[in-house]
Amino acid sequence: MRLQFEPFYEEYLKKLAAYNLASATMYTDQWTVAPSAGIPHANEMMAILAQELFQIENDPAMIEKIEAYHKTLPEGSLEQKEVKMRLDDLGHTRNVPADVYRDFVKARNDAGYYWHQAKEKNDYALFKPYLVDLMNKSIEYMKYSPKYTGDNLYDVFLDAYEPGMNEEKYDAFFDVVKTELVPFIAKLRAEGRTIDDSMLSKSFDIERQERFMDTIMRYLRVDPTRVSLGTTEHPFTNFLSHNDMRITTHYYPDRFLSAILSTVHEYGHALYGLQMDEMFEGTKLNENVGSAAHESQSRFLENHIGRSKAFWQANYDELVKQFPEFEAVGLDALVDMINVSEPGLIRTEADELTYPLHILIRYELEKDMAEGKMDYDQLPTLWADKYEQYLGVRPQTDSEGVLQDVHWSDGYLGYFPTYALGSAYAAQLYHTMAKQIDVDKALREGRMEEITNWLKDNVHHYAGSKTMAEIVEIVSGEPFDPHYYVDYLKDKYSKLYGLK
Amino acid sequence: MRLQFEPFYEEYLKKLAAYNLASATMYTDQWTVAPSAGIPHANEMMAILAQELFQIENDPAMIEKIEAYHKTLPEGSLEQKEVKMRLDDLGHTRNVPADVYRDFVKARNDAGYYWHQAKEKNDYALFKPYLVDLMNKSIEYMKYSPKYTGDNLYDVFLDAYEPGMNEEKYDAFFDVVKTELVPFIAKLRAEGRTIDDSMLSKSFDIERQERFMDTIMRYLRVDPTRVSLGTTEHPFTNFLSHNDMRITTHYYPDRFLSAILSTVHEYGHALYGLQMDEMFEGTKLNENVGSAAHESQSRFLENHIGRSKAFWQANYDELVKQFPEFEAVGLDALVDMINVSEPGLIRTEADELTYPLHILIRYELEKDMAEGKMDYDQLPTLWADKYEQYLGVRPQTDSEGVLQDVHWSDGYLGYFPTYALGSAYAAQLYHTMAKQIDVDKALREGRMEEITNWLKDNVHHYAGSKTMAEIVEIVSGEPFDPHYYVDYLKDKYSKLYGLK
Repeated sequence: MRLQFEPFYEEYLKKLAAYNLASATMYTDQWTVAPSAGIPHANEMMAILAQELFQIENDPAMIEKIEAYHKTLPEGSLEQKEVKMRLDDLGHTRNVPADVYRDFVKARNDAGYYWHQAKEKNDYALFKPYLVDLMNKSIEYMKYSPKYTGDNLYDVFLDAYEPGMNEEKYDAFFDVVKTELVPFIAKLRAEGRTIDDSMLSKSFDIERQERFMDTIMRYLRVDPTRVSLGTTEHPFTNFLSHNDMRITTHYYPDRFLSAILSTVHEYGHALYGLQMDEMFEGTKLNENVGSAAHESQSRFLENHIGRSKAFWQANYDELVKQFPEFEAVGLDALVDMINVSEPGLIRTEADELTYPLHILIRYELEKDMAEGKMDYDQLPTLWADKYEQYLGVRPQTDSEGVLQDVHWSDGYLGYFPTYALGSAYAAQLYHTMAKQIDVDKALREGRMEEITNWLKDNVHHYAGSKTMAEIVEIVSGEPFDPHYYVDYLKDKYSKLYGLK
Repeated sequence: MRLQFEPFYEEYLKKLAAYNLASATMYTDQWTVAPSAGIPHANEMMAILAQELFQIENDPAMIEKIEAYHKTLPEGSLEQKEVKMRLDDLGHTRNVPADVYRDFVKARNDAGYYWHQAKEKNDYALFKPYLVDLMNKSIEYMKYSPKYTGDNLYDVFLDAYEPGMNEEKYDAFFDVVKTELVPFIAKLRAEGRTIDDSMLSKSFDIERQERFMDTIMRYLRVDPTRVSLGTTEHPFTNFLSHNDMRITTHYYPDRFLSAILSTVHEYGHALYGLQMDEMFEGTKLNENVGSAAHESQSRFLENHIGRSKAFWQANYDELVKQFPEFEAVGLDALVDMINVSEPGLIRTEADELTYPLHILIRYELEKDMAEGKMDYDQLPTLWADKYEQYLGVRPQTDSEGVLQDVHWSDGYLGYFPTYALGSAYAAQLYHTMAKQIDVDKALREGRMEEITNWLKDNVHHYAGSKTMAEIVEIVSGEPFDPHYYVDYLKDKYSKLYGLK
């Protein structure tokens, strides 16, 4: 059963859902099958529809009605929670003076444009003034959040991407990551064995990769009546509605595993959407699921399932049948290759172990940005120093350093930390799951539904009615503890690399 | 350069275009890649957006403004033509009383539902009352058209699908079709040789068919930055914008040529859209292109290009390379197979020669429907009698007879005739083109652009600023004459079947 609202509110939600579905469909279409020459026109049309939606959503008379309605709802009910979350979001928009919003949008457009230019030309100086301007305008914009109290600016950013999070909690989390993983990775580099994974960068025909993807999708029990798989440049998942998830992948001839693990990752997002309780459909309790929460599910599938030996044990025969090249490799060596760790400069190419340090670096830098303490002239050097200090590698250019990610140029301050936190949530959830069901056995025997059902019953069904920190605590019986994460990584990689 | 309108009107057109693009994208998505379980929700959302669009489009204050604006535009200008066409369409909607419209929509929904049931159960009696009701309600609805004068009901239907057409003109056209083709087909059956085309119903792997489709698309010079090809159940083309055409196809393992000819057909529609003058984008002069006009272009490509010997000559080597099974067939025999004619019961499976007689039958029947003279109890018998009389075959069931098409159950009275008229326009255009350029040589030598450029310069660029009858007259220097069509068919099939 859906949540129960007054008809006027129900109709309002449905109207918003209609515009959002149109936009999501057009977005998905654009990044998968749309011919490129039509995109400028489509973007212009999407902007018109966004403007229409904005006017409907922020209609002052409607907001007044919603405010009155809010007071009639029982405190603590899910309905009240939805309306409260919505009023908070609408409040931010309403509080922002038109010129502040306009300046923010302009700064974001400029920063996006010059980031592209600067990255291409490998020239941070070109981007710098626009980054500074955008950060100032983002901060100005964020100050109108109802959650801003005068001295918690970065908290407001962090909370926007993962409700309930703040700087203090992230500090505690990253402190463990840094203390435990920086020395561990150094030790692994010094003492670990060498794993040859050159097999994975041989060239494999894309049509064959597509056929093997069908095998993997069937193994994962992906329901084709609710999930479709498309191809795109940078894989994403789009949530069209409770029964309509779009996942995308990208096939590279010479990165055979990239498409598979990326699809497993995206399916983790989709599965979360599919298994949320349908009663939240179309409400903030569905939409406002945090990024760390979402990332915990995609990384759960990618790292704890897709990179596991049991997963490949189940699919090895079919792999060898379709790619006889892998017969000589053997299962154990294949799984080792899939889990190779090697400190690098590029976040999106990082392995499971070094990934959180890429995030740590960004977190430490953006804290200073949010608090207005960053010396932007020094940013590339600060960046390079941290890479050298934490990962033992130093970027030689801006493009492979501070210019590599789109996030800051898009005004996404506070987003990066969710990536690492999501992995850590996943590790604690996995630890609990493995005490309750025999995960490896289920994977080996092709009973993926045991795992997805567990996730549904213990995690997914809540949607955004609880934060992932709350869910982790309910599921595991203790508060979130990042040691589950670092212990899991250290244990896994000690074994893999033969450390004592 | 686009047409020049007052800013208020420009903005109005853009807003309509935005909603229409959303709807077209969602439609295309739904029939190509959308997972099925999400469709009911998507339909509900699309209905909400359609309602939003309806209110914007038919806003009385806006229409008043447009009416005043119309009076200021120079008579005969393209701008005035656009505004006039729009006011005519809006006028019809405004004239229709709410209850008449509601009853029409309900009758259409019911008829659609019961047609499906009846077709499945092979039971016309189940459909009959809903068909009768829908026809009554359609007629009632059409009477509010500004073009209805009191005694031209079927004309209004016919004009709605092909502007400028009426019963008198169609009568003259179908009279030639009937007089010339009915005896010719009988003669061909009696005296023609037998052509064995069983090769075409052998089973061919769909992946191989897809690869060969790439060959054909390249040969046709399909621009992938402006046209995408998807797969669907019943192929269609959707016109998203000037630079964004979506064509679709359906691969059957045992109907190798079906996907190819259907793609060539759909590309004919897309090419028309691509080559219309961009200044008409977003106006009625683009949208109101008639169905016969459109069908003339799809059938031009399908019949005059895709079924020609020169086309297959150019692609034969590649065909044999990808499908060695065709080597033993030989080019001439292949082209013969592609053009086999055999009277049958099902319109959508009909060949080029017998196709117009399927349409003639429907035309004769729906004239009586539109004029309220149909005895619906007798409809299946009338249908069967005409099939026997014109094609020498008689349906044994309702499903392979009167229930086969969706059109009437959708209220599409007056649509069928455009299919045959389109073919006839195509024949006269082809006749003219072949006098001006060496079509076969261009096809043999892989210069498809010569043909598409000719179509652009002589036909496509006008969009809906002229009717296809006007265009045919301009291009060929004489009024439309159906003898070009029947002569072409008789000549082609006399040769193919060795008639004297």
